[in-house]
Amino acid sequence: MTADNLASVRALAFDVFGTVVDWRSTVIREGEALGRAHGLQVDWAAFAEVWRDGYQPAMNRVRQGELPWTNMDELHRMNLDDTLDRFAIRGLSETEKQDFNRVWHRLDPWPDSVAGLARLKPKFTVTTLSNGNVALLVNMARHAGLPWDLVLSSELIGHYKPDREVYLKAADLLGLSPGEVMMVAAHKYDLRAAAEAGLRTGFVPRPLEWPGRRIDLSCEDAFDVNASDFLDLAAQLGA
Amino acid sequence: MTADNLASVRALAFDVFGTVVDWRSTVIREGEALGRAHGLQVDWAAFAEVWRDGYQPAMNRVRQGELPWTNMDELHRMNLDDTLDRFAIRGLSETEKQDFNRVWHRLDPWPDSVAGLARLKPKFTVTTLSNGNVALLVNMARHAGLPWDLVLSSELIGHYKPDREVYLKAADLLGLSPGEVMMVAAHKYDLRAAAEAGLRTGFVPRPLEWPGRRIDLSCEDAFDVNASDFLDLAAQLGA
Repeated sequence: MTADNLASVRALAFDVFGTVVDWRSTVIREGEALGRAHGLQVDWAAFAEVWRDGYQPAMNRVRQGELPWTNMDELHRMNLDDTLDRFAIRGLSETEKQDFNRVWHRLDPWPDSVAGLARLKPKFTVTTLSNGNVALLVNMARHAGLPWDLVLSSELIGHYKPDREVYLKAADLLGLSPGEVMMVAAHKYDLRAAAEAGLRTGFVPRPLEWPGRRIDLSCEDAFDVNASDFLDLAAQLGA
Repeated sequence: MTADNLASVRALAFDVFGTVVDWRSTVIREGEALGRAHGLQVDWAAFAEVWRDGYQPAMNRVRQGELPWTNMDELHRMNLDDTLDRFAIRGLSETEKQDFNRVWHRLDPWPDSVAGLARLKPKFTVTTLSNGNVALLVNMARHAGLPWDLVLSSELIGHYKPDREVYLKAADLLGLSPGEVMMVAAHKYDLRAAAEAGLRTGFVPRPLEWPGRRIDLSCEDAFDVNASDFLDLAAQLGA
C-alpha cells in the first residue's frame, strides 16, 4: 500500500503453478503428443483442467488427516490415474504414466517470468513458496531457467498452503519477519492467507491460466502491489 | 571408483564451511577491522579457530538433547560470546556482536568454487548440504555468487551432519536414490557418513582451511572421486 510497507521487503516468495509457469499449455502439449503416439481422440484442454482440478481436493485429504503427508508428485499421480479413467484412456504403460506425471517438472514459464525474476534478484531474495515438492520445483527451475535463490516448498514445512504455518515458517527460514517477505501469486486465496500471517502481498493476475473460467482477476487495494506481470512488479518495487 | 558408479550420479551435495568457502580468512579479516575500530590487540587467526572449534561441541549438545533444536546462527552466537570472553574482548555493543556473528553469512568462496559450480551445474543438480541454517546459506550464496539450484540444510531436516538422516533425507527430497547423489566435502568424517548412507563421495581437500593443524588431506580409494579443487572435480565427472 504505502512506500513504507514496501521499503521493508527483503524477500519475494512466489507461488509457482499458474503464477510463474503455464501448467495448462504444457500439459496440453504433452498430452497431444501422447495422444498422437497412441491414436487417441482426447480434448486435452479439458483433460488438463480436470487433472488440475483434483489438486485442492487431494491436498484437503492430507490436511484433514485422511492421508498421511503425501507429496505433490504422489498427489498428481493419484489424480492422473483418476483422470485417465474419467477420459477412458487405456493402454498407457506404467513407464508412460510415470513420465506423463512428471510433466509438472517440465512446465514452461510465462513469457515474462525468467526476465522478471532476473531483474528482481539483485534487490530481493527470490524463492518459491509452492505446494509442489522439492524435486519437482528444482527440476522445473532447471528446465525453465528460473533463477531462484532457494526452493521453499510445503514439503519442507509439512503443511500445504494456504495453511498459516507455511507462510510463517518461510519467513522464519529466511531469517526475516513476516512483514519483510512479500508473497507473489496469481491467486487471491493464497495472498489473503499470506496477509493474515503478516506477509506483504503482490498480485499478478494470469488471465491465460483458466481462459474458459470466470476467475477474479481484478486489482485490489488490499494487496500491497497489483502488477500486470513480473516486469511490472520489478518496476513497481524499484528493481 | 568405477565409471558405472559415477554414471548414475545426478546431483552433487556440497558441504559448505571449509569446502566451498574460506571461513578462516573471512573471520580474520572482519575481526581485524573490528579490532582496528576498537583499538584491540587480538590474534584474530587464533580467535577464528577457537570460534570455529566450538562448532562440533555445540552441535553435540543439540544431538544429545541438552539443547532443543538450535540453528547455526544461534550456536555461532553462543560460541561468539564464549570466544569474546576467552580473549577478554569487552566493549562491543550488542549491534556489533550481532553483525560480527553474521560474518558467517558473508564468507568468501575459495578461488575455484564459483567457476567449478558453474561448470558442474549444467550436468548435475548442485545443492548445499550443510549444517548452516537456511538464511545463512542463502545470504552467503548471494554474497559469494554461488549458483545453487537449491539450499538444503540440517535446519530443514532436524538433524545435524553426520547424522545419517541428513544424507538420506537429502536424497529423498531430490527425488533420487542415495546412489544418485554424491556428497562433496573437504572432511572425511562427512564423506564416510554419506557413504554409509549409500551416497557417492567426492573428496576435495582444502589445505588452507586449517593451515596450522595436521589434518588428513590424503586421497583415499574409498572415495569415488579425489579432486584437487572443483574444476578438477568437474573434469573428472565429465562436466
